[in-house]
Amino acid sequence: MDIATIVGLVAGVGLVTITVLMGGDARIFWNVPSIVLVLGGTMAATLLNYPLKDVLSVLNTVKNAIIHKETSPEQLIEKLVGFATVARREGILALESHAGEASDEFLEKSVQLAIDGTAPELIKDILTTEIAFMEDRHTLGQSVLTAMGTYSPAFGMIGTLIGLVKMLASIEDPSGIGAGMAVALLTTLYGALFANVLFLPAAGKLRVRTSGELLSKEVIIEGILSIQSGDNPRVVEQKLKAFVSPVIRERISIGRK
Amino acid sequence: MDIATIVGLVAGVGLVTITVLMGGDARIFWNVPSIVLVLGGTMAATLLNYPLKDVLSVLNTVKNAIIHKETSPEQLIEKLVGFATVARREGILALESHAGEASDEFLEKSVQLAIDGTAPELIKDILTTEIAFMEDRHTLGQSVLTAMGTYSPAFGMIGTLIGLVKMLASIEDPSGIGAGMAVALLTTLYGALFANVLFLPAAGKLRVRTSGELLSKEVIIEGILSIQSGDNPRVVEQKLKAFVSPVIRERISIGRK
Amino acid sequence: MDIATIVGLVAGVGLVTITVLMGGDARIFWNVPSIVLVLGGTMAATLLNYPLKDVLSVLNTVKNAIIHKETSPEQLIEKLVGFATVARREGILALESHAGEASDEFLEKSVQLAIDGTAPELIKDILTTEIAFMEDRHTLGQSVLTAMGTYSPAFGMIGTLIGLVKMLASIEDPSGIGAGMAVALLTTLYGALFANVLFLPAAGKLRVRTSGELLSKEVIIEGILSIQSGDNPRVVEQKLKAFVSPVIRERISIGRK
Amino acid sequence: MDIATIVGLVAGVGLVTITVLMGGDARIFWNVPSIVLVLGGTMAATLLNYPLKDVLSVLNTVKNAIIHKETSPEQLIEKLVGFATVARREGILALESHAGEASDEFLEKSVQLAIDGTAPELIKDILTTEIAFMEDRHTLGQSVLTAMGTYSPAFGMIGTLIGLVKMLASIEDPSGIGAGMAVALLTTLYGALFANVLFLPAAGKLRVRTSGELLSKEVIIEGILSIQSGDNPRVVEQKLKAFVSPVIRERISIGRK
Amino acid sequence: MDIATIVGLVAGVGLVTITVLMGGDARIFWNVPSIVLVLGGTMAATLLNYPLKDVLSVLNTVKNAIIHKETSPEQLIEKLVGFATVARREGILALESHAGEASDEFLEKSVQLAIDGTAPELIKDILTTEIAFMEDRHTLGQSVLTAMGTYSPAFGMIGTLIGLVKMLASIEDPSGIGAGMAVALLTTLYGALFANVLFLPAAGKLRVRTSGELLSKEVIIEGILSIQSGDNPRVVEQKLKAFVSPVIRERISIGRK
Repeated sequence: MDIATIVGLVAGVGLVTITVLMGGDARIFWNVPSIVLVLGGTMAATLLNYPLKDVLSVLNTVKNAIIHKETSPEQLIEKLVGFATVARREGILALESHAGEASDEFLEKSVQLAIDGTAPELIKDILTTEIAFMEDRHTLGQSVLTAMGTYSPAFGMIGTLIGLVKMLASIEDPSGIGAGMAVALLTTLYGALFANVLFLPAAGKLRVRTSGELLSKEVIIEGILSIQSGDNPRVVEQKLKAFVSPVIRERISIGRK
Repeated sequence: MDIATIVGLVAGVGLVTITVLMGGDARIFWNVPSIVLVLGGTMAATLLNYPLKDVLSVLNTVKNAIIHKETSPEQLIEKLVGFATVARREGILALESHAGEASDEFLEKSVQLAIDGTAPELIKDILTTEIAFMEDRHTLGQSVLTAMGTYSPAFGMIGTLIGLVKMLASIEDPSGIGAGMAVALLTTLYGALFANVLFLPAAGKLRVRTSGELLSKEVIIEGILSIQSGDNPRVVEQKLKAFVSPVIRERISIGRK
Repeated sequence: MDIATIVGLVAGVGLVTITVLMGGDARIFWNVPSIVLVLGGTMAATLLNYPLKDVLSVLNTVKNAIIHKETSPEQLIEKLVGFATVARREGILALESHAGEASDEFLEKSVQLAIDGTAPELIKDILTTEIAFMEDRHTLGQSVLTAMGTYSPAFGMIGTLIGLVKMLASIEDPSGIGAGMAVALLTTLYGALFANVLFLPAAGKLRVRTSGELLSKEVIIEGILSIQSGDNPRVVEQKLKAFVSPVIRERISIGRK
Repeated sequence: MDIATIVGLVAGVGLVTITVLMGGDARIFWNVPSIVLVLGGTMAATLLNYPLKDVLSVLNTVKNAIIHKETSPEQLIEKLVGFATVARREGILALESHAGEASDEFLEKSVQLAIDGTAPELIKDILTTEIAFMEDRHTLGQSVLTAMGTYSPAFGMIGTLIGLVKMLASIEDPSGIGAGMAVALLTTLYGALFANVLFLPAAGKLRVRTSGELLSKEVIIEGILSIQSGDNPRVVEQKLKAFVSPVIRERISIGRK
Repeated sequence: MDIATIVGLVAGVGLVTITVLMGGDARIFWNVPSIVLVLGGTMAATLLNYPLKDVLSVLNTVKNAIIHKETSPEQLIEKLVGFATVARREGILALESHAGEASDEFLEKSVQLAIDGTAPELIKDILTTEIAFMEDRHTLGQSVLTAMGTYSPAFGMIGTLIGLVKMLASIEDPSGIGAGMAVALLTTLYGALFANVLFLPAAGKLRVRTSGELLSKEVIIEGILSIQSGDNPRVVEQKLKAFVSPVIRERISIGRK
């Protein structure tokens, strides 16, 4: 899990909690039926909107995108150039023992394909297809999460309206108005919180991740094909550096000389 | 009807009903004139916006899209490979008796065209046209439902404004304010509910379904043309697997060996 | 005027009127200054936004689009095939006496061009240009009506704010608050009504109509060119059926046999 | 200044003024600090958003677009055909004395280029470049005005919030609530007014003007090139009529015969 | 820092401060927990949405875009033509001593590449890549700032809801309502202020800057390549003037004659 996600989550939840706790009885903010209505309603609308398997797959996609540690492009290039050096010196089969080092599943698979002597076109085909389906999954995930970020405040408002109608319909004792309205407003608060601390940032993260992973995977394909064709490590390095910005290029320190 | 739709509908309606029932007299939430105004107004604006036949056709499209059980791509591929085996072994006419097995109307029609010895280009042409008109229907359906999802909260607000004006214009007895306002807010509640539990999710479902059906129908066309051209079942399988993700490919178990 | 427009208008206006009349004095809802402010303000902003001639032409476009009875594609195809039969049997000049039957001005003009022996390329050119300018008019109409649908609630809100400021600035007698606020809310109500019962559905209808008319006009051009080139009525029928969905194709009954 | 702009401005300002004046003390609506906050805040945010020179150039663009009387396409075509007749009869240099008649600066410049014997490709190049930069200016103007139309209600709301906080923080005398809230709401009113009577319609007008001017300028380029190449006035007329709709074509009366 | 940014910032902050100070105790507007919640919440959601390094890089991008003084295109063209004159008279190596004059880092780098005798294609390649990554940075910056401009009012509303619930849940003394509500509204005010005075204008400025810098950098590339190829200063001038509008062209005064 990258540090921004942790910091963001802790800061977001923490700040709201502190604000809630400050100067008063925080128990009024804990209202299970309201939470159930907002989360449940959001889930219900999402299930009406998307097939069950798509909604379930989103959980997985998000989990992967957040927990899975992204390898930085510079580390990736260094590793691929390292592989190229090994393959050049000891032959491509020598990568067998290094494939395990690849912290990245896609890289591992790519290396394995190269070791197995798969034809370059086929390697490219297999890996490109996998990228395309990865993109599909992420796009689906974004649209599901964005839908949740839209339904969540809507059910917050629905809950508040239900609460207001109940309260207004039975005002005998005006002194109860305050408490009734407080409870009614809670669902709107929950709806806004879930949307802005959970669903919308997650959708955004998925979009950012997609482009990041896309870049990494393209670097890997280019690198593996270059290694397989027997390119000199320096050539591999040149080819891969074309994918990253000049600033990142300078950060790459190949363990040479 | 797929399970997500049932779960979503039961959960959505159930949660709102429970929230309404909790701790009080639920009858105040049942207000026929408000429901009539919101649904009727939404319908009226939709009829002003779209021709009658388009609005009616949407009901049908939605019904089909929701009730009609989608054949999963893996089942479809298995069935088509099965057909290829039969056609290979006993001749294409032998599919006559199997066409009935096709739970899918489009598949049945495709098989029939192949059996009738229709020229491949014509088969492709006929089926592609049908897909294009299916897409048109779904796109129309989405736009009608999205319009309904926009008009519905608008008429909810209109109803609430009418209620507020009535109530405010005749406050003699301040004690009646609460009840009057409760009734006024009901239409906004209905408008939000219809939009978020009915119209918008249905529009979303239709969009998701379109791409699903499109894939299925393209698999069928490719499969039928491949079978008609006398391809080996293994070749048919290869061709069709190119349409689905690696994960799904592994789930396909052809009854061979 | 198509039936959906009538039903929609009657239902929309009727429902709102009934809701207003129910249980109380409806006169409070009739406030001429509020109506003048909302409609006048909307008109003023629209005139600032569009040239006078464009705004005036919209009225015309909408009137035409709504009152003008659309010929269904199936009727159109039947009529064109009928013309083809006549032209084939008695020569193209014989259409002179039938041109009047064409309930459609565009069809009449097309037939006249064919009778006059205009060159096919020129016919196509003239008619295609007319279609392009029809599309321009409709697109302009849509954008004007959508602008009106946006300005209308804005001026509703402006009116309500003016009303609220007036009322709040002179509260001596709290018992007058209710009535003052009721009047203030009326403009918001009017703004929402005009937008959702008038401007936005009209803009939507215009968009739907555009594609409908486009199809009809393309069928006519294809049909007239086919007739002029002396095609057999069956060939004309085949060519024109390609424009419509399989469902509609079956509904076409040519008076043959 | 075209008539729609005058009518729109008078009607918009007039209606709001009358509504304000009706039945009460209108002075409460005149609140200089509120106006300064809304207009000043909008300006401040716009200056943060755009470079100073762009914001200043918008004033100019809007002034030109509104004050500058657009020549109708039919008048333009008549004038160009007239020029063609003169050029044909007395030689292109004879246009020297007529160039002054051109109420349009762009037309004048075009005629001058033709008289100077500039090569056709160069004329086309110079004039097309000028059109492209005109489009850039207008697009910039639209985006600045749309931004203003977005910031204006935002600062209206900011002002109202400041007013509400002030008022609420010092309620000792509940009788002052009304007046305080009235003042607070004024900024929201101003924000809505400036956006809907000024900024948004001006942005819209600019967009409409762009396409109008584009057409005029294209007609001029085509016309001048045709005249320079020595085309017969009838040929010039034919070429230019292709730019306008059939309806406008019939309105063009060339002073011939 | 360009003057519009300073004026905008001073005016925006100044106006709001004055409005706050006017006629009352301004201390009520200073509420640290509210500021922390809005800014912190916005930051938290942004960190959930974007990787840490992207969020940090935005600060840098904004700082550069705002502080860095943009060279006007006319100054740039004058300087490049000056360089061309020097290179023509004294040889390209003579630019060595002038490279320092280039107030622009990109220009300095371009001149250095030319002096070093880098091949033209390589110069173009290096500089174009740098432009592409500059665009990427700016686009990322815009999307981060726009996200902040969306999260900021959302957390403003969340804070207000928390404040309202607290206040309503503990009304014993109705006289405290005013003060409680004032504090609750503060977060909405902060949210709106940060969005409209900070985040959204900064996002807009970045977008405007991108196109401005793009133009400058393209002028530089064209100019350096033209100088390197030994073009006459007048030719260089002609080539570069094609990038700017006729109005700016006239403002360029080359120190010749």
